Amino acid sequence: LARERSLASFTPRHLTHLLDGSAEHTERVEAVRRILDREPLLDKSASYHLDHEGQYLRALKVMERVRALREEHRWSAGDMNIVWQEIYEGVPSLLNDDLFLKTLRDQATDEQQKNWIPLAKNWAILGCYAQTEMGHGSNVRGIETTATYLPATDELELNTPSLSSIKWWPGALGKTANVAIVFAQLVLADGTRAGVFPFMLQLRSFVDHTLLPGVETGDIGPKIGFNGVDNGYLALRSVRIPRANMLQRHNELTRSGELRRRSQMDQRLVYVTLLYARVNIVAGASTALAQGSTIAVRYSIVRRQFGQDGSTTTESPVLDHQSQQHRVLTPVSEAYAFHFTGQRMLQLYHRLVSAGLAADEAKSLLAESHATASALKAYVTDVTSGSLEQMRRACGGHGYSRFSGMPDLLGMYVQNNTVEGENHVMAQQAGKSRVLIKRYQQLQSSGHGAETTTDYRYMLPVTTEQLEADRCTAMRADEIRDPRVYLHAFERRAAHHIGMLHRRLSQGAPFAECHVDVERIVRAHAELYAVYSFVEALYPHANTWTSASADMTPAANIAPPVHSVLRRLCDLFALSRLVANLGDHLEASYLQSTHGPLARAAVRRLLQELRPDAVALVDAFNIPDRRLGSALGRWDGRVYEAMAAMAQAGPLNRTDVTTGYQ
Amino acid sequence: LARERSLASFTPRHLTHLLDGSAEHTERVEAVRRILDREPLLDKSASYHLDHEGQYLRALKVMERVRALREEHRWSAGDMNIVWQEIYEGVPSLLNDDLFLKTLRDQATDEQQKNWIPLAKNWAILGCYAQTEMGHGSNVRGIETTATYLPATDELELNTPSLSSIKWWPGALGKTANVAIVFAQLVLADGTRAGVFPFMLQLRSFVDHTLLPGVETGDIGPKIGFNGVDNGYLALRSVRIPRANMLQRHNELTRSGELRRRSQMDQRLVYVTLLYARVNIVAGASTALAQGSTIAVRYSIVRRQFGQDGSTTTESPVLDHQSQQHRVLTPVSEAYAFHFTGQRMLQLYHRLVSAGLAADEAKSLLAESHATASALKAYVTDVTSGSLEQMRRACGGHGYSRFSGMPDLLGMYVQNNTVEGENHVMAQQAGKSRVLIKRYQQLQSSGHGAETTTDYRYMLPVTTEQLEADRCTAMRADEIRDPRVYLHAFERRAAHHIGMLHRRLSQGAPFAECHVDVERIVRAHAELYAVYSFVEALYPHANTWTSASADMTPAANIAPPVHSVLRRLCDLFALSRLVANLGDHLEASYLQSTHGPLARAAVRRLLQELRPDAVALVDAFNIPDRRLGSALGRWDGRVYEAMAAMAQAGPLNRTDVTTGYQ
Ligand SMILES: Cc1cc2nc3c(=O)[nH]c(=O)nc-3n(C[C@H](O)[C@H](O)[C@H](O)COP(=O)(O)OP(=O)(O)OC[C@H]3O[C@@H](n4cnc5c(N)ncnc54)[C@H](O)[C@@H]3O)c2cc1C
Ligand SMILES: Cc1cc2nc3c(=O)[nH]c(=O)nc-3n(C[C@H](O)[C@H](O)[C@H](O)COP(=O)(O)OP(=O)(O)OC[C@H]3O[C@@H](n4cnc5c(N)ncnc54)[C@H](O)[C@@H]3O)c2cc1C
Repeated sequence: LARERSLASFTPRHLTHLLDGSAEHTERVEAVRRILDREPLLDKSASYHLDHEGQYLRALKVMERVRALREEHRWSAGDMNIVWQEIYEGVPSLLNDDLFLKTLRDQATDEQQKNWIPLAKNWAILGCYAQTEMGHGSNVRGIETTATYLPATDELELNTPSLSSIKWWPGALGKTANVAIVFAQLVLADGTRAGVFPFMLQLRSFVDHTLLPGVETGDIGPKIGFNGVDNGYLALRSVRIPRANMLQRHNELTRSGELRRRSQMDQRLVYVTLLYARVNIVAGASTALAQGSTIAVRYSIVRRQFGQDGSTTTESPVLDHQSQQHRVLTPVSEAYAFHFTGQRMLQLYHRLVSAGLAADEAKSLLAESHATASALKAYVTDVTSGSLEQMRRACGGHGYSRFSGMPDLLGMYVQNNTVEGENHVMAQQAGKSRVLIKRYQQLQSSGHGAETTTDYRYMLPVTTEQLEADRCTAMRADEIRDPRVYLHAFERRAAHHIGMLHRRLSQGAPFAECHVDVERIVRAHAELYAVYSFVEALYPHANTWTSASADMTPAANIAPPVHSVLRRLCDLFALSRLVANLGDHLEASYLQSTHGPLARAAVRRLLQELRPDAVALVDAFNIPDRRLGSALGRWDGRVYEAMAAMAQAGPLNRTDVTTGYQ
Repeated sequence: LARERSLASFTPRHLTHLLDGSAEHTERVEAVRRILDREPLLDKSASYHLDHEGQYLRALKVMERVRALREEHRWSAGDMNIVWQEIYEGVPSLLNDDLFLKTLRDQATDEQQKNWIPLAKNWAILGCYAQTEMGHGSNVRGIETTATYLPATDELELNTPSLSSIKWWPGALGKTANVAIVFAQLVLADGTRAGVFPFMLQLRSFVDHTLLPGVETGDIGPKIGFNGVDNGYLALRSVRIPRANMLQRHNELTRSGELRRRSQMDQRLVYVTLLYARVNIVAGASTALAQGSTIAVRYSIVRRQFGQDGSTTTESPVLDHQSQQHRVLTPVSEAYAFHFTGQRMLQLYHRLVSAGLAADEAKSLLAESHATASALKAYVTDVTSGSLEQMRRACGGHGYSRFSGMPDLLGMYVQNNTVEGENHVMAQQAGKSRVLIKRYQQLQSSGHGAETTTDYRYMLPVTTEQLEADRCTAMRADEIRDPRVYLHAFERRAAHHIGMLHRRLSQGAPFAECHVDVERIVRAHAELYAVYSFVEALYPHANTWTSASADMTPAANIAPPVHSVLRRLCDLFALSRLVANLGDHLEASYLQSTHGPLARAAVRRLLQELRPDAVALVDAFNIPDRRLGSALGRWDGRVYEAMAAMAQAGPLNRTDVTTGYQ
């Protein structure tokens, strides 16, 4: 690895600073890291031998240790984000710090917030977010838990009236949390159902942690990952809470039992909150890919198998094999692409929350951003899960071992396809709210894009003649490796398929028969956005949607050697995605069938060009060995020593002859 | 589910008989099943709570129980195959029964076989297959363990001279096996290295199971799946074995220390053995998909979420949503496709071992079959792993729980991408032996296919004019749903890409720069073979490679209602694969860009047509609940009751307040 490091065409530290936003932030991360690196408890490899119960008990210890360190070092909220990012494991308190607190901030009244938020922040109470039930997740309106208002005592009575109404899945609900925000159907005194609302419920004694009367919780068992967290169930039998425990920021339940909207709820707020959650998911994908590719790239250098021409006697690092480069370097390019995509969404978010936006502009921008964010959530988590598994396999046999760090990374990550809007349900919604289709229709008929952000301009109408004339003229591989060319291909592909679906719908096809096509356009739109984000990060002055006249001045904040390796990654990301969905592109007729081979030749070339920088590119992610928890991905490359040591420490190796032997 | 079952257009039992080969075989399976169903030990759900050590100890108990049942019921070898298929879990003795015995049969002399095979068959000794080392797997020639001949004592001395030479991964090696076939570099008395050969080594005492002097073994730790098996390591320090322990069927090590080929080794034997292993992998993929889709389809009926138009109040089974059908029914079609693909390879195998084959014909058929088999191994395991994960996600949140049965199925299955030839190494070899390319070249230049089996005829040369004229004329979705049309598309796509790669290579491109293209042609060839196998099973008289004049008389052994549902599955398999790789097809110019939308329309239609038969199609796989080990996939659909019961039995729920609570 040292030799590889000396070959790099750029200084990884510069790239780290760029990813972190500033050198100062990198320093801050590393200051926290030095403290955590001294904690033997945080060595992940010990947890690989534990069952779900053992992993959970260990996670509790981690929580307690972090609580002590937080006090000792007076860590701020910002530091704590770094801490959890550094630990990078499922720990029950994450649910309190994230979903629980977030819901309080969004849904509790100012007074409620004053009462509860400080307690939750200090873990004086530990909360969870209890929405999903055994029988209902995606369709929140269908949940069956009831909260019935009892005017006599001014209380609400909570019940889970059926097996399928039992809360099921909420993280930390099983054993850890002592309070929960429970979502339930509000039943008014006259029996009418007023909709689903959140209620604050104490689950356990603050003194001895025993369950309160009428409350039954438990752990729902072992999972494919995330086993440090006690996802739990909750059954409720006539549990009463004061009316004041309903979270009433947006709605008020009066003493007389009437439900009143407090004010026109600010749609902007809802969207903005969702947007922020999606930014986190996109950024989280980049983090997971960074972690996985650090392991896969480093191991692919240490691992030697066959020579480059298949020789069995002289051996090269497996990363010298083209197919290995393809499987491992493409995910590296995705890690970078999704980083810049996340950054771009963050900027959008800041623009949206800034006061300066006119109401009209804000409204349209919000709807569009929301649709893009939903599309990206589904797209990015899907690509990331696939690439993580691909990299796990690229570690050969050793990738099957938990000591590689890959199985646990993958197991933890794949929940992202399901939570915060199951990907396929999400895709239907990005389509169903029909923003993509509607905006397409508007732009096609109005013919001007005044009220449209840059991101949707690709939907503007073009005449048949323009379309006929608009053919890619690239004749050589390096001509297709031009952002102006491939970006335009992605635009045309997205516009084409949205147009086709629009026609099907206008001709009367029921939406329910268009699911698969909806997924196609959602992917096309999201992919375009990701490519655009990457290109824009490198060439911020390019008005790339009209690609011919783009100003390709490189971003001033990126050192030239870093810029040039990022450009390669950008090309690799775009062109490998293009090759993966070539059929979609060819249907759109901007690219012709001669361009497939050109794009593939460009990819081959890019793999070669990126090969010498491979290690530096993952070093730049700056992920410490403790967080990798991997025998294969270690900084020092001492793979086999680590595997041997981890295996020898296993419980089955305590004795020579196992107790089970008859 | 009962209502669904009543809707089916065919009798699942008929299909079961077809899959099993005969009604008698189905009876035999079910007779064994009745015995196993009475064994509480075989309830998988208990194992979900166990760590690797616990799962291993449980697997040992399963072994012991099966041994007792085998004696009680006098099960034959054929019955035992059924037993393990029924248990469908990783158990250490599998390695003895499969790889260990197979190697003895292939590599031991008759006398060695007489000594060892009866012992191994009765588990009087328990063996394992120890080839892979810490540092070498795919490149077998690179392994470092040595076996040095010592003429003085007529012994061989085994050593693992370095960390990376330690045997690593062999199943059952860690704790269970008492003997191993160890692969090592044979070092002759004069120090020359004569190559890698297998040696029989006793690891442990047959009396008290303790390790013998100089032998160190242990378990290599927890894995993403297959945790009932103790994959292990083995370090050897100057362990001596008699010369007679070298497996010497094909080579002889003489008393004077010379190595002699015993006879011209029969290449046919090697290929035939490999072919048989591949048949098992293809058939195994079908089994895994059958298991996964049984769970996913049944659960998709029980699970209700949203109405078909996205209504939040009235709810339909999620299988009524088109995207869910797409994700779940496509794998059902793959399960059937790979079943018939496996069957076809089995027939090929029988043809090859039959005596009647002329030497020349055999030689060419062997090389071709071997290349096809390697291609299929990589292709089928890749598609299957992807579809299993897709179905796991299609179970929503509950698919993340081990109680769904999906995580363990997936974890166990994905080893198939790595073992028996890592998929990408395998792909390079199918290409590297260059059979595909070579045969293409031969057929192109000779212009006649006399010495070619049907399966490679698609490579025969066509003139430019023929090519120009040969365009698909389908204008409607139902026209593309014709096996004669889509088979031809698959032929043309494979021929086109093989031709392109052939040109690149002739123009001097080094093979090492063609890995990604090699994978493309391997996939194209394998996919064509799979489609062809399915079509041929339905229309055995069609000489489909020349599709125009095909005789489409349905197979006589398939009842018409079964035939018609299988035809739909065949269409769905072929067209969904066509859509997935549309770019490859469009480049080949037989299909044009108008055909993408037609193929997609046909797929939509097929999903609708297959929807009513979904449950019957998975019932026909005839997989008992015990084997599914799934709360979601139960025959009776009592999903939520099962989930609740399994969760309540979890160790974390023994006490209200966990011991870890401070
Ligand atoms: C690790 C993990 C942690 C979790 N943490 C929490 C938590 O802290 N709090 C909490 O309340 N919940 C939590 N959940 C639950 C999670 O939010 C839900 O599982 C998720 O919303 C998916 O819903 P579901 O399980 O009902 O899936 P379903 O909606 O039942 O999905 C099943 C299948 O049906 C399909 N489907 C459903 N509706 C449609 C439609 N209209 N069109 C097409 N297809 C459709 C889906 O695509 C999917 O394939 C967690 C889940 C997991 C796995
Ligand atoms: C569950 C399990 C059970 C096993 N059981 C046994 C057993 O019973 N006995 C036994 O002896 N072994 C066993 N093995 C080991 C198994 O056979 C090897 O892991 C397998 O052969 C892959 O070899 P490897 O690990 O060396 O991978 P590697 O070859 O090191 O692969 C690493 C990466 O390099 C790539 N690569 C390597 N060479 C090339 C090339 N020439 N061109 C392009 N890419 C290349 C691969 O594609 C892969 O991505 C088992 C493994 C597992 C996971």
